[in-house]
Amino acid sequence: MNTQLLLNERPVGFPSEQVWKLEKTEIPALTDGQLLVKVLYVSLDPAMRGWINDARSYVPPVQINEVMRSGGVGKVVDSKHPKFQVGDHVYGMSNIQEYCVTDGYGWVKVDPELMPLPRYLGTLGMPGFTAYFGLLDIGQPKEGETVLVSGAAGAVGSVVGQIAKIKGCRAVGIAGGAEKCRYVVEELGFDACIDYKNDNVYAGIKEHCPKGIDIYFDNVGGEILDIALSRINQGARIPICGAISQYNNKENVKGPANYLSLLVNGARMEGFVVIQFTHRYGEAAKQLGQWVAQGKIKSREHVEKGIENFYPTFKRLFSGEKQGKLVLQIGDED
Amino acid sequence: MNTQLLLNERPVGFPSEQVWKLEKTEIPALTDGQLLVKVLYVSLDPAMRGWINDARSYVPPVQINEVMRSGGVGKVVDSKHPKFQVGDHVYGMSNIQEYCVTDGYGWVKVDPELMPLPRYLGTLGMPGFTAYFGLLDIGQPKEGETVLVSGAAGAVGSVVGQIAKIKGCRAVGIAGGAEKCRYVVEELGFDACIDYKNDNVYAGIKEHCPKGIDIYFDNVGGEILDIALSRINQGARIPICGAISQYNNKENVKGPANYLSLLVNGARMEGFVVIQFTHRYGEAAKQLGQWVAQGKIKSREHVEKGIENFYPTFKRLFSGEKQGKLVLQIGDED
Repeated sequence: MNTQLLLNERPVGFPSEQVWKLEKTEIPALTDGQLLVKVLYVSLDPAMRGWINDARSYVPPVQINEVMRSGGVGKVVDSKHPKFQVGDHVYGMSNIQEYCVTDGYGWVKVDPELMPLPRYLGTLGMPGFTAYFGLLDIGQPKEGETVLVSGAAGAVGSVVGQIAKIKGCRAVGIAGGAEKCRYVVEELGFDACIDYKNDNVYAGIKEHCPKGIDIYFDNVGGEILDIALSRINQGARIPICGAISQYNNKENVKGPANYLSLLVNGARMEGFVVIQFTHRYGEAAKQLGQWVAQGKIKSREHVEKGIENFYPTFKRLFSGEKQGKLVLQIGDED
Repeated sequence: MNTQLLLNERPVGFPSEQVWKLEKTEIPALTDGQLLVKVLYVSLDPAMRGWINDARSYVPPVQINEVMRSGGVGKVVDSKHPKFQVGDHVYGMSNIQEYCVTDGYGWVKVDPELMPLPRYLGTLGMPGFTAYFGLLDIGQPKEGETVLVSGAAGAVGSVVGQIAKIKGCRAVGIAGGAEKCRYVVEELGFDACIDYKNDNVYAGIKEHCPKGIDIYFDNVGGEILDIALSRINQGARIPICGAISQYNNKENVKGPANYLSLLVNGARMEGFVVIQFTHRYGEAAKQLGQWVAQGKIKSREHVEKGIENFYPTFKRLFSGEKQGKLVLQIGDED
């Protein structure tokens, strides 16, 4: 038997517990070319909030009674697929369920000897790739520039700032709370981190970005985006990766009132989703793997346990009660 | 004696007549390296509204009791400058006054035989250059793409759409009123034009941009920017040239609430000011001159007369009671 997390209803504003439901179903027999994955860890990401809206986006919305979408790592427990053997560890769009039957499309093998499995959902997975392409391709950092990143203690932001340092930039983070800021500066090596929950962000940017902002990597939107816009340099780049402050709005998204700063500064704001770069995931995985192995990129995963704990864990994405990549453990190696 | 238009006070919201005042002053004697220009035509542009705010921008604000900033064309009536002779026609930052004493920095000669003088303030001047660099460098049009432009009957927008056609794109305009829309389609050769004063802009875009929007060249901001954002294609570019709907706000600018469309479409919004491209004005002047000579770019100038009519003429920028480039004639040849 399989336990699956299904979308039960569409949320308005912040999702209530009733938005999802657990259901037990039978695991279908494999046909030729399929494999059965026992799901060990699934990735919890702010983007999930978008996937359950009934709106045109870069992927189709999750439908009511469909299994909730998610990336996951697991172990092959049965296979009629030529490329995957029983015992292989794999990453793919497992969705949130104990077992996943798939034709292997988009699935890759991962090595648990090299890295702890949850890291393949973080720094060595989509969030790491998002940071890599978002900073390097969209942001185009040059040595000596100042890179400001919000959500700096998160799965994406933490990697953005560390790549910025590798590229010879000044890296300044924005995060919520003194402990996260300490982590960002002392453990991850950012030059500074502004605590938006306790400090004045405008004053913090003025102090820690004394030469202005060349790249603002935005994960949060809202007021912080507007403040950053007011301090950008000529030719600045603003990769728009997310807008977590706006995802649960019942009313309209707050648009950046200071967007005309782009005009007077000849600057650009550019959105992206990591799947634009699918053909280059191999490059990102290799480079990030090297940097992790060399100790140039550090990361943390915050692991919660049990598919039945999906909802309280999901809430941590928005409350910020986590440190590093948020992962839910669904099953055990055995 | 010289008559000058001075900034008298800073406006809040839409400028009243008291924001400027006329003053008579003596014309100082020329020193070596200077020339005296009799100003014939000055350019009236929406950007003027920004120049009189006390705010950090791409040029310093006009100060109280300074002559109001403006580009102009005129005739050299006295010269101690080696490059300019009496009788030469010239373009430069004349500001709004009958006579201008200058060291010639940034001034260029123009040929009244080739084009009527007011055109050097429009298609063959800053607005034309703005369209040229904004569309070609910021927008990067490719053959077969759809280019939507607001302010399509205006000095910049009219040239944007015509260059889009030259480059093999579908050009769709947005303008205010049936007569402007007729002009844009029948005289300028756009494929379609949406009348935002009488028609539903969303429906108009859906009808006239059936393959979505690849480039939205924005002169207006506000609600139209938000509607355009909701219809962009993957990889779309949005050159931000202006935001005339927002320049006279007493409260905050309305930020684009749909900016997350940039994210899901991997699209970018890029601001620019024409002075970023100063080193390439020669290229733009030559190419635009050719296109005009070949009849591929048409233009109109709306000329009002008399420095004392500055204020009612200025108001036309925002009421839209004009067709083509708005120019104020300050003096006569002779």
